[in-house]
Amino acid sequence: MAEKKYAIGVDFGTESGRAAIFDVSDGRELATAVHPYAHGVIDDKLPDTNISLDPDWALQDPADYIEVFKTTIPAVLAQSGIDPADVIGLGIDFTACTMLPTTADGTPLCFLAEWRPNPHAWVKLWKHHAAQPEANELNARARAAGFDDLLERYGGKISSEWFFPKAWQILNEAPEVYEAADCLIEAADWVVWQLTGIETRNSCTAGYKAMWSKRQGFPSNAFFRALDPRLEHIVDEKMKREILPLGARAGGLTEEAAAWTGLQPGTAVAVANVDAHVAVPAATVSEPGRMVIIMGTSNCHMVLGTEDRSVPGMCGVVEDGIIAGLPGFEAGQSCVGDHFAWFVENAVPAAYEHAARAAGLGIHEYLEAKAAEQAAGESGLLALDWWNGNRSVLVDVDLTGLMLGLTLATKPEDIYRALIEATAFGTRLIIETFKANGVPVNEIIATGGLPNRNKLLMQIYADVTGLPIFVAEAAQIGALGSAMHGTVAAGAAAGGYDSIKQASQHMARLRDEHYEPVPEQHAVYEQLYAEYVRLHDTFGRGENDVMKRLKALRARIKARQV
Amino acid sequence: MAEKKYAIGVDFGTESGRAAIFDVSDGRELATAVHPYAHGVIDDKLPDTNISLDPDWALQDPADYIEVFKTTIPAVLAQSGIDPADVIGLGIDFTACTMLPTTADGTPLCFLAEWRPNPHAWVKLWKHHAAQPEANELNARARAAGFDDLLERYGGKISSEWFFPKAWQILNEAPEVYEAADCLIEAADWVVWQLTGIETRNSCTAGYKAMWSKRQGFPSNAFFRALDPRLEHIVDEKMKREILPLGARAGGLTEEAAAWTGLQPGTAVAVANVDAHVAVPAATVSEPGRMVIIMGTSNCHMVLGTEDRSVPGMCGVVEDGIIAGLPGFEAGQSCVGDHFAWFVENAVPAAYEHAARAAGLGIHEYLEAKAAEQAAGESGLLALDWWNGNRSVLVDVDLTGLMLGLTLATKPEDIYRALIEATAFGTRLIIETFKANGVPVNEIIATGGLPNRNKLLMQIYADVTGLPIFVAEAAQIGALGSAMHGTVAAGAAAGGYDSIKQASQHMARLRDEHYEPVPEQHAVYEQLYAEYVRLHDTFGRGENDVMKRLKALRARIKARQV
Repeated sequence: MAEKKYAIGVDFGTESGRAAIFDVSDGRELATAVHPYAHGVIDDKLPDTNISLDPDWALQDPADYIEVFKTTIPAVLAQSGIDPADVIGLGIDFTACTMLPTTADGTPLCFLAEWRPNPHAWVKLWKHHAAQPEANELNARARAAGFDDLLERYGGKISSEWFFPKAWQILNEAPEVYEAADCLIEAADWVVWQLTGIETRNSCTAGYKAMWSKRQGFPSNAFFRALDPRLEHIVDEKMKREILPLGARAGGLTEEAAAWTGLQPGTAVAVANVDAHVAVPAATVSEPGRMVIIMGTSNCHMVLGTEDRSVPGMCGVVEDGIIAGLPGFEAGQSCVGDHFAWFVENAVPAAYEHAARAAGLGIHEYLEAKAAEQAAGESGLLALDWWNGNRSVLVDVDLTGLMLGLTLATKPEDIYRALIEATAFGTRLIIETFKANGVPVNEIIATGGLPNRNKLLMQIYADVTGLPIFVAEAAQIGALGSAMHGTVAAGAAAGGYDSIKQASQHMARLRDEHYEPVPEQHAVYEQLYAEYVRLHDTFGRGENDVMKRLKALRARIKARQV
Repeated sequence: MAEKKYAIGVDFGTESGRAAIFDVSDGRELATAVHPYAHGVIDDKLPDTNISLDPDWALQDPADYIEVFKTTIPAVLAQSGIDPADVIGLGIDFTACTMLPTTADGTPLCFLAEWRPNPHAWVKLWKHHAAQPEANELNARARAAGFDDLLERYGGKISSEWFFPKAWQILNEAPEVYEAADCLIEAADWVVWQLTGIETRNSCTAGYKAMWSKRQGFPSNAFFRALDPRLEHIVDEKMKREILPLGARAGGLTEEAAAWTGLQPGTAVAVANVDAHVAVPAATVSEPGRMVIIMGTSNCHMVLGTEDRSVPGMCGVVEDGIIAGLPGFEAGQSCVGDHFAWFVENAVPAAYEHAARAAGLGIHEYLEAKAAEQAAGESGLLALDWWNGNRSVLVDVDLTGLMLGLTLATKPEDIYRALIEATAFGTRLIIETFKANGVPVNEIIATGGLPNRNKLLMQIYADVTGLPIFVAEAAQIGALGSAMHGTVAAGAAAGGYDSIKQASQHMARLRDEHYEPVPEQHAVYEQLYAEYVRLHDTFGRGENDVMKRLKALRARIKARQV
């Protein structure tokens, strides 16, 4: 019997990084450690300066990422007692698009005294929203110049969170920083560069965030010229055209990185991946037909297809974007757990808080228990889940929430349940859109925070979609997915695997219990879903743009008051 | 200078009766006293029995009304020290339709041992809703038999709260009670009968609640036959065809009633009136163009016209119904203060309750203060005020509430303000409907509980309607209106007045402060009102009947669970 082998995954989140070490044979987690970023999210003042940031800015310090390697990997080795010689591979996943400017050798500009006081020299975090003017301009000019096909791969709109709007914002607001940057790079790829000494670019961030496609590469220079003549050569000047598929070996660990981590020099390091997408194989999915939904403050829906299809309103379709060799489709709902957090903070009466405390329950648990006493349709309520706009399938940040059916008998648990149902209807509409465009969805695998916290929500999603819902077993799904990519980077010869599909078959698992749709509830939800679709189309597809007019009016009035 | 003269008004509410005594020369209130009904609203068990009432029943004990006379009139005489010889007249107003079966001499059937255990022998209070099947049947059969014109005088539908559905319910469910009743009568007229020994019927209840009109009298026998052959002669068998105008002298106080009250036998007693309508002249209005709105849990809108017009969706138009000689129009909103009560009970977070307490404010005051910091349109919200259905102008109990424009930044005060605004838009839509149908409305006089409690609401109503809003001065507006009718029953020769108009000019007053629309706010509300109307029509006029479908679905599911 072969000696036991192990792999490590490092999952870089918004506030902290986490490492975990897994048994390569069965994916069992042996130890995990987390390290909060010393600077967290930088959204007030630039560190060690009095330079204030505008409210929609969100930066990070790349030094914090290196500290994650230095603290968490030694910690999991120590906790598990595993011999570093038995660790065959390492993978990372990251938030995206989280990007930074560096010199040719990968030194972040913000590490250099000359550039350190310039906010544009720092990492722009995924939720940095200050590039909205550039995103608007990109979408308008791309359309005007006839690049509609490119936009359609991303649901018709490029988000301000993505790579080129952020790069363009640097160019517009700090052309000297743009000029000084030899390289503009995803933080995901940058940390792999720091581990291996080799600059690589991965197909997931390139595809979903930087408009790259396997067959056509990046948009043409003509495309960038149409945006801004100064951007014409951005790919050749600041990026790389070679894009590596997920699971590829970026390189081996450098002596320096080995010293940081306690691992052996030369340990295989996989190319980078994105926190959402890396969860797909870790949730057992490496084939079409089974949708993975990461359920948390927002929902992220990912499904593999067999051919490149245009599906309206998704976040993107990328061949090799999730699993090498297949097109990966991503869609999203911008407000899910956030609905319930808003509700609890703003609309739950004191009497309910007291009753929850008396019952020894959290307020969410208490509301869930009361809402679970109801059957589908019993509240008489129907909501549109647009408290934070609509990502898929309408791609419209200016839509707002709606609640209909309120009476003097409406109770807080009725509204709570209606909010859950609305997000379920939103997910169903995404699924129906995929199916109508030739991308099959036959079952759902859930992961993220909500499946552990709200069984009622899970059952409602099953009843609304009419699909069985399974739950991924891994607690640290991102780290597991990253470690799996590390085993593929190592390869079967080194005790790893030759493909993500193989790694997934051995290392990923579902929980035993799952959720089946209840036919009676599903039948009622069929009626409610039809009503949801009608309201969705009335207010979302231009029949009555009252939401946009109210929002615009509100903005004008607020502006006048300033 | 003539000796001072006084008049007494007695205002019969839902839970209690109140008397007040006024100076005839200027309407100054000198004393007031209230007496809660011993049996209150009987909606659980019939008194002294184990007979349970269904949830939509609401009865009263007529003996409680007599107690009001016996306690409150002596109290106001004693408090004010006024010589009963100087009291020239007495008037009453009552909730309506509140009706009861009696023998030919006016003895309520529930006073008789034989009938006392039968719920149908008692007073059916205005909010007794168990005659809904009869109301539905009445509306359907009247339409089928071609009596549309009759229904149109009442906005197209007769309410289950009104006289004939209640009478018909007695006939259907207790034909022996119906048979035993020589008389079916409004409690308003019944208490006047008890005071004077003379059975009279007033034009207000007859017109607004029993389908009487000055020019056509009651509906024809053929109409009643079309409903139910047993009802064919209901008017001749159980009612009176002679209807007296408001302010007419019903009779003089009997010796017995004089003994109850401490007033002199023969004191003039006016024919009965309704609590809402009697407030109109007490709010200074006895001419067209000035709308009186009683603002409380619900809103009641009354305005005088110059000619009999059909206005869609109002509660009724009755010549002599408010002021003799003019058509009186009534409209209503079924949920106003109730919205805010619902909101505070079900949707205000504990943090707000704590903050209100810390600031030494009630929760309504606290929310009002926070909402008052906003300008029109600033919340981004728009609501349909249908938590309790819609009375005017859609006359549809199956409509439900809607809130639109919600975001993660929406705060409780935003929703509170949007609810106020929604009721203001509803009032404006009623006013626009009157104006479009030839009934002018140039200013608003407010009375009821809300004008004293919520200045923000008053200003929003002015800003939304674009009309100045004045507030009636009288604290006991019903009692003042009733006393004014007492002065007219007494007549000028006895120191009273010859018309309600004269009485109103002398005895009714407005407060000094009033509310003027602010042009900038009105301009924004013009835009929001247009959006309100569009939503109102989409969901209220059949374009999308989702509210009714959800309500019907809810009812089916609830029924299945029973």
